[in-house]
Parts: sequence; structure tokens; C-alpha cells
Amino acid sequence: MNYSYTYSTSLRVRYGETDQMGYCYYGNYAQYFEVGRVETMRSLSWPYKRIEEIGIMLPVTEFNIKYKFPAKYDDLLTVVTYIKQVKGVRIFFEYEIYNEENNLICSGNTTLVFIDFKTRFPTAAPKQFLESLSIYKLPDHDSGK
Amino acid sequence: MNYSYTYSTSLRVRYGETDQMGYCYYGNYAQYFEVGRVETMRSLSWPYKRIEEIGIMLPVTEFNIKYKFPAKYDDLLTVVTYIKQVKGVRIFFEYEIYNEENNLICSGNTTLVFIDFKTRFPTAAPKQFLESLSIYKLPDHDSGK
Amino acid sequence: MNYSYTYSTSLRVRYGETDQMGYCYYGNYAQYFEVGRVETMRSLSWPYKRIEEIGIMLPVTEFNIKYKFPAKYDDLLTVVTYIKQVKGVRIFFEYEIYNEENNLICSGNTTLVFIDFKTRFPTAAPKQFLESLSIYKLPDHDSGK
Amino acid sequence: MNYSYTYSTSLRVRYGETDQMGYCYYGNYAQYFEVGRVETMRSLSWPYKRIEEIGIMLPVTEFNIKYKFPAKYDDLLTVVTYIKQVKGVRIFFEYEIYNEENNLICSGNTTLVFIDFKTRFPTAAPKQFLESLSIYKLPDHDSGK
Repeated sequence: MNYSYTYSTSLRVRYGETDQMGYCYYGNYAQYFEVGRVETMRSLSWPYKRIEEIGIMLPVTEFNIKYKFPAKYDDLLTVVTYIKQVKGVRIFFEYEIYNEENNLICSGNTTLVFIDFKTRFPTAAPKQFLESLSIYKLPDHDSGK
Repeated sequence: MNYSYTYSTSLRVRYGETDQMGYCYYGNYAQYFEVGRVETMRSLSWPYKRIEEIGIMLPVTEFNIKYKFPAKYDDLLTVVTYIKQVKGVRIFFEYEIYNEENNLICSGNTTLVFIDFKTRFPTAAPKQFLESLSIYKLPDHDSGK
Repeated sequence: MNYSYTYSTSLRVRYGETDQMGYCYYGNYAQYFEVGRVETMRSLSWPYKRIEEIGIMLPVTEFNIKYKFPAKYDDLLTVVTYIKQVKGVRIFFEYEIYNEENNLICSGNTTLVFIDFKTRFPTAAPKQFLESLSIYKLPDHDSGK
Repeated sequence: MNYSYTYSTSLRVRYGETDQMGYCYYGNYAQYFEVGRVETMRSLSWPYKRIEEIGIMLPVTEFNIKYKFPAKYDDLLTVVTYIKQVKGVRIFFEYEIYNEENNLICSGNTTLVFIDFKTRFPTAAPKQFLESLSIYKLPDHDSGK
């Protein structure tokens, strides 16, 4: 099922997140995407913590990112997160990060899998979570395929 | 130009690199790939530091990773790094990380760009660096294209 | 000179900042204190970035912390920062971090030194910065010493 | 009980561990001390993992550090770790970090508490661990106190 849900949150680049090039280290964006993801889920009344409380964890299985423009120390960044698709046991997020001058810093995507905490096996997305998302469903143009 | 140069290095998952799932956090692998990259360059007598000393920096412009198997605290990981291609101002690395039981933890790739420190513009790969790599050149099957 | 300036800011514990004990890793609090320090300076119209812009850097020379109560994933923490003293080339900060139930998570302090970026030698605190702080001066009970 | 056990291990400063001052970020040393601690315990045949396997965790309750000399990117650092004392439920470590020119980078100490994983209450140090340490006992000069 495809969705069209977007949420924006902001964060500042910390000093410890810069490197000696004077830019935000490329490895920190995974954590910025995580912040985007978590706040997006909170905006749907599904803070990630609640997912774990019902016995499910949501590890990342794929992460892709393109760096377009350097972020600097103390930049106030906007993380725009898109929930694009839930397909079986997987959920697909996309992200864009902008600085205050509206430069696109980076864009990327992640795939996550719903895993049962006890069995450590993949499991369907929680029904109630899907219900929270249901009003953002996109019409299914791919049905003929 | 395509190359076939491979180098392996190892590192241990630190406690602070785990998260509450009990696994190594997905965001730490960017740093593990960096360790692989840096040690691979050192093995060619080109520690990354030397690149910066001649006035060039090498930021990452693209990073892709697939997570296959969780790494745990204190796991001794082997990072296998491949230099695949240098094309104009870009260098392409690929990576695989294995644990001690030889499970493939993740695989991925990065693209980096040679940047002149002063002008902050892209610049050709340093000649001497390419010379160090030259014996690992692959025959160019794509010449007819 | 002793001061009595306090500022509070808040931040959330990120997933990547937990460890497999299920708590926030002890090494992350240095960064939380940095956030407290930076926002405290911003509240005085002296974002740390401005200090660097006038050619001064402010490295930490001492850091002490006592951990009282664990912080957990997604906890919304309040970082209370105190500017206690500026003495020659040094500035002394104290910190307390609380969770939403008002448990004291940790308390600590740091000493930082004003360093001239060019010479890399210690230098006096910038006059204008001291002026911003001047209304928070404490009466000097130690004058007889 | 006071001990005199020392162990040295080495690690390299990673690029992502530098900040825009061009030095290793002050917050990373907590992780370097952790590496020192963990390798010191491994050298006694008590990798920290084994402590957790017998149902005990060892959180840090106090951490103090003085920064003496900056560590730079790619510096090969030696972490010297001392086990100084085990007293009831607490264990006291001290640390010194040196660079290759033998400059003292920093010195510090940590206090950790043995905690029962199930009850989450403090518990005595494991007997077998104390046995591993016993040949390093110092004569008790404080017995008269």
C-alpha cells in the first residue's frame, strides 16, 4: 500500500557532529533521519517507543543517501520525512534535509522491517498503526500490473 | 578506470555503539566503512591524512548500505574494502563486513569526490595516488562504448 | 569574577544514543552538556559560533560528571546550565539534567579555555562577551583574600 | 581492596571523531576509556561481555577527565588503564592516554557499580572476577584507619 504522509521536524548540528573539514560528518545523517522518522511516527500518535511497547522492533535493513550540500556547525536543519509505502513486513521512508537558506543538504531513503521482539522473526505491521495511516492512502494505480 | 584492489581490516563493536535492541546501531557503519577506507588507503602508502596534507579533501557524496545480519557488542568484525573505480574527480569504494562466524553483516558502497581545500571545487585525483593504484588496473572492456 | 546566570534547554534521547543496557550511553552526556552550553551562550546573544567568528575557540580542559539516574530512549531531558565563573582565560560551567518526572539524571561541570585561533595560545575572554554577562555578576565576597 | 593492575591498548582517532577545531572531540574520550576498560578486563580473561553473561551489568556512576594535549585525526593513541580498587559494589579505574610522541593527551577516572540485571540493584563484585585480580592485590596500608 502506498501512502502520502509527510512531516517536518528540525534539529541543530552539534559541535561534536562536525569533523575537521568543518562540515557535519557524513555518518551523522543516519541519526538525523532517525529523528525525522521518530517525530513523524509521533505525529501519527505512534511514537516509536509505543511500537516497542507492543513487542515489535523496527530495524533498518537498507539505507541510501546522497549528499548535496554541506551542513555546518549550528545550522538549523529541517528534516522532511515521507512515509511512502508499507508492504508486508516492510515500511519505506524517504527524507530530505534542508538548511535555513533552503539549500537541499541531502536526500535519502530507508527500509525498515517489523520484527517480533520475542521470536526475532519478521511480522506484519501493527493493525492500529496502519489505521492511523489509512487516511493517507494513495489510490492504487498499480492494480492492473 | 576500473581497479581491483582489496584490503581487509578489523575492528570491535564498542559498547557505546550498541543500541537498546542489543545490536550495533545502523548509523555506526558509516564510521566502520570510513575505517575500512582509511586503512585501505594506508595499505597503498596513501593514508587519508596525506591526501589532506597535499591540499585535497575527500568528502562522501553518496552512501548506500544493506544490513543483512546484526552485529553485536564485542563482535570482532572484518571490514573488506574494494577500490572499484576512479572516474574524473570521483572514487568508488565497495565494502563488506563479516563477523567471526563469517556471517555477512552488511554490504555497501560510497562515492567520494576529490575537492581542492582552497577553492572548495572538485579536482582530479592526485597523480601519485593513481600511480600507487596503477598495478591494480583492470583491462578496459568498455573501450568500445 | 563569579556569576549567577542560568539557562534551561531541552532535548530528547535518540535511539542511537541508547546502549544495550537500555539506557542512554554514559559517553553521550558530554554532547548534552555541549548543547546546554551552546544554548546558554545563545541566550546571551553569544552563540558559540560568534566566539569562533571573532577568532577564538573554546576547548574543554576539564569535565566531571556524576550519573544519578538512568535516562531512557525518547526521554525529554531538561539541561540546566549555570555560568559560575570567568577567571582569566578560563570559564566554568555547571550542569544538571532532569527527566520529565523531575528525576536528577546527572550533574557535572566543565572548564573551558579561551584560545586564540591563530596563535593557539590562551587569551582573555572577549570583552563584549563579559559585558553581556556583567549584569549577572555576583558580589565579590572574596575581595579580602 | 586496592589493586595494582595495568593494561595498555591502542586505537586510532577516526575522522568522524574530530571536530571543526581539527582535534578529537572531547566527548569521544568516554568511549576511548571504555575501550581501555574492556580490553583490560579481557586481559584478565574477563571480557565485559562475560560479566553481562553471568547476569551483571556495570554502569558508570562517575567520570572525571582532564584534557592536556589535543589528539588529532589518525593519531595512534595508547590507552593505559589501571584497576585501582574494588570496594563493595564499586570498582575504580584510572586512565591515561598518550600519543605516539608520548605526549599525555588526557588523564581521568571512572567509578562503576556492579548491578544485578534482574533486580537492577547493586550487587557484590563476582567472586571469580575478584579471584582473577587477586594476585594484583596491594598490601593494605589503611588497615589501621
